[in-house]
Amino acid sequence: MTGTAPSPELLDRFAAIVGEANVLRSAQDLAPRLIENRGLYHGKSPLLLKPASTEEVSAILKLASETGTAIVPQTGNTGLVGGQTPSEDGSQLILSLERMNRIRDVDPVANVLVAEGGCILADVHKAADAVGRMFPLSLGSEGSCRIGGNLSTNAGGTAVLAYGNMRNLCLGLEVVLPTGEIWNGLRRLKKDNTGYDLRDLFIGAEGTLGIITAAVLKLFPQPAGHQVAFAGLASPDAALKLFEKASNLCGTALTGFELMPRIGIDFTTRHIQGVRDPLENPHAWYTLIDISTNDSAATAETMVQTLLEQGFEAGLIEDAVIASSVAQQKALWHMRESMSDAQKPEGGSIKHDVSVPISKIPSFMAEAEKAVLAAMPGARVCAFGHLGDGNIHYNISQPVGADKAEFIARWREINAIVHGIVLEAGGSISAEHGIGQLKRDELAHIRPEIEIDLMRRIKHAFDPAGIMNPGKVVSV
Amino acid sequence: MTGTAPSPELLDRFAAIVGEANVLRSAQDLAPRLIENRGLYHGKSPLLLKPASTEEVSAILKLASETGTAIVPQTGNTGLVGGQTPSEDGSQLILSLERMNRIRDVDPVANVLVAEGGCILADVHKAADAVGRMFPLSLGSEGSCRIGGNLSTNAGGTAVLAYGNMRNLCLGLEVVLPTGEIWNGLRRLKKDNTGYDLRDLFIGAEGTLGIITAAVLKLFPQPAGHQVAFAGLASPDAALKLFEKASNLCGTALTGFELMPRIGIDFTTRHIQGVRDPLENPHAWYTLIDISTNDSAATAETMVQTLLEQGFEAGLIEDAVIASSVAQQKALWHMRESMSDAQKPEGGSIKHDVSVPISKIPSFMAEAEKAVLAAMPGARVCAFGHLGDGNIHYNISQPVGADKAEFIARWREINAIVHGIVLEAGGSISAEHGIGQLKRDELAHIRPEIEIDLMRRIKHAFDPAGIMNPGKVVSV
Repeated sequence: MTGTAPSPELLDRFAAIVGEANVLRSAQDLAPRLIENRGLYHGKSPLLLKPASTEEVSAILKLASETGTAIVPQTGNTGLVGGQTPSEDGSQLILSLERMNRIRDVDPVANVLVAEGGCILADVHKAADAVGRMFPLSLGSEGSCRIGGNLSTNAGGTAVLAYGNMRNLCLGLEVVLPTGEIWNGLRRLKKDNTGYDLRDLFIGAEGTLGIITAAVLKLFPQPAGHQVAFAGLASPDAALKLFEKASNLCGTALTGFELMPRIGIDFTTRHIQGVRDPLENPHAWYTLIDISTNDSAATAETMVQTLLEQGFEAGLIEDAVIASSVAQQKALWHMRESMSDAQKPEGGSIKHDVSVPISKIPSFMAEAEKAVLAAMPGARVCAFGHLGDGNIHYNISQPVGADKAEFIARWREINAIVHGIVLEAGGSISAEHGIGQLKRDELAHIRPEIEIDLMRRIKHAFDPAGIMNPGKVVSV
Repeated sequence: MTGTAPSPELLDRFAAIVGEANVLRSAQDLAPRLIENRGLYHGKSPLLLKPASTEEVSAILKLASETGTAIVPQTGNTGLVGGQTPSEDGSQLILSLERMNRIRDVDPVANVLVAEGGCILADVHKAADAVGRMFPLSLGSEGSCRIGGNLSTNAGGTAVLAYGNMRNLCLGLEVVLPTGEIWNGLRRLKKDNTGYDLRDLFIGAEGTLGIITAAVLKLFPQPAGHQVAFAGLASPDAALKLFEKASNLCGTALTGFELMPRIGIDFTTRHIQGVRDPLENPHAWYTLIDISTNDSAATAETMVQTLLEQGFEAGLIEDAVIASSVAQQKALWHMRESMSDAQKPEGGSIKHDVSVPISKIPSFMAEAEKAVLAAMPGARVCAFGHLGDGNIHYNISQPVGADKAEFIARWREINAIVHGIVLEAGGSISAEHGIGQLKRDELAHIRPEIEIDLMRRIKHAFDPAGIMNPGKVVSV
């Protein structure tokens, strides 16, 4: 994407909508907004706007459509595919929702919460807790990611097994269209078959079809019982068999089932403060099992004990521990959630966010490791993730002592190897992180032409001026 | 919608695609396909086509787009809003998926089943049962409705509480676009964030954006325990309070929570063979409670007993019975599912398929009844439905002895009264049946202009020739 830098006069017209106090213009102020977490993309932008209301967002997009000015929406800037980063030519403005962070309503009887797009996920958790309810979306970045971004990327995380992705946690939306028109679809209904599903079209569109300014989110009862267990196993196959047992035993009380390799435990115990291996001896693989029950604490206790007994009896579990306090539960989850960060001190890391039908996880793991090691001897595969969803964060740390830049330069090559195996298995090259800039061209390559064409037709229909986060998801 | 009747030559070109043995042309053969269940719409058509494959569907739609011939897709012809009925001018052809009724694959390990659009829902149930799994969509019409229609209307039914609508039960689709292009989106993944959510756009589009020729459906474990209870109560408010208790106690093991009025029990016991009132004395309201557990039969037993105890203790339940055999369970569900049919012998019935936030059900019931009786003294409100989803089939039988035609002539007037109260409560005028012809203009009236406009833009983008079930959902 190349565009023309907006004139100073035009920048002032945009700034006037929100007031000079609510813009960033200097290179220093803008710097942290122009780089994403992994450092893969560095953008340029002359102006970041912080509207305080849906009406201000509307005015910005109206002016943008009239003047052909590209707008990049940004919330917590925690995305992992460059979807929130402007292009490098300095033609795109950033619209940050950070001031639109009000919880507009909480209704514990109807079990809904209405949050603005700039609400931090952790603040939504707190608002739900305050009325004795729970909002289940749970991510490593929940202290900084924001609801608008969670929706725009259809965020997943660790509780998808029981509660679904962000798509499943949202009843209604308020969206400002690229033209500046406001769509009020803030409905609170479980069932509503009235025409095309616009809501699900905006969810996961990564800000390319409009800006989500508010959403009706589903709340749930706080569980009466909660148990977390950690088990050492010999293989992903053993983990899959244990998952099947857990699924049958617990049904939707099974709220998490994570797979981790030994090297992930090594990395976290080595680099993350306070993390220690809770089991006496090392095991090749591990699962973190999370069980939440609605009726009583006793049910969760019985379930976790029964599951571990079944796992030992079937020869699936080598060793296991049940967290005996909330602090221990948090420590186990902290180990899992810091597994990505723990790779940083080990040098470069080439990452994949893939899913395969869950029955194919063991064969995928075996094939991918073989292929990666053949291409790059000494590479250290640290593949972990949400086994119950078929979603593996297939991360590869550089060989010990290798040159980081040379390693990272092989990102696309290694992607092609891993994604090839994923696609053979009928899998997805982006299970939960989205497409952004990182996977746009690859998506167009692997999907049928008609699918990309339908996306383009939708993009044109919603954003005729082409100003809405251009260059992301689908090229136009 | 008015169009030109296709020439005999053009009809022959369409017929040649499927072969003369697989078309209906005579008025007699076509008659049952031109009228829908409620008799509100009578269409005309010169030709019904029965393609046997996705490729034949594609050839039909390609020819239709080229020649500007309107095509109305039809599956089980059980829809309740005229979505499957052609217009009255005889210009539209019917495409029936009845020969595309193969189950393409069943995979009990991955818990998926791939069905063609013409599969009868009950046959999908059987195919799942045969491998020890369950497909949860459950409707009164399941012996004749077909998967393509279930998807195109985002069907709901009695198990939505635990398993969701059809939208939630589908992982992937194969769709023939109005242009004849085939989109193969038959993915089997739980998590797949790769661009716009085309799947959910086709689901619920009522055949106006393309024809769903196959789908990947989710299977579930067969429950280990199943209990059905029937309770008499004083009011919808008592039922709502009991629902809250049930929801907290059972979580997602609560697989059904239906509300019924006394008059519904009167109608079914009077008109439906084999139905009898299982309780000794009459009550103003009733709930049917369905509980399914995955771990053991004992859990369901404990749950249903505990729930009834809690309900009696709280003074919410006046009397109750637990079905003691599968036959009794079926009998209770049969009463509920025949409640719509039982109204037919009572004369005309004006129907509504509405939802409101569930906390507002009691006030909605009270207000709506007051308003209906004020407008039409003697009318008999038989409002029943899926309380746990906020979805009420607000049906009104004519006053005893009134003229049926005169009563039915007031359909729109009474709709306006009931829908007005629904909309005040933030509800939906079509919770699960869809829009079709019946509610198209009303939808355009009650929704913001931008919402209808976005639907039109999508329609144009997908169906530039305007041949795909025209006149349904949104006017173009």
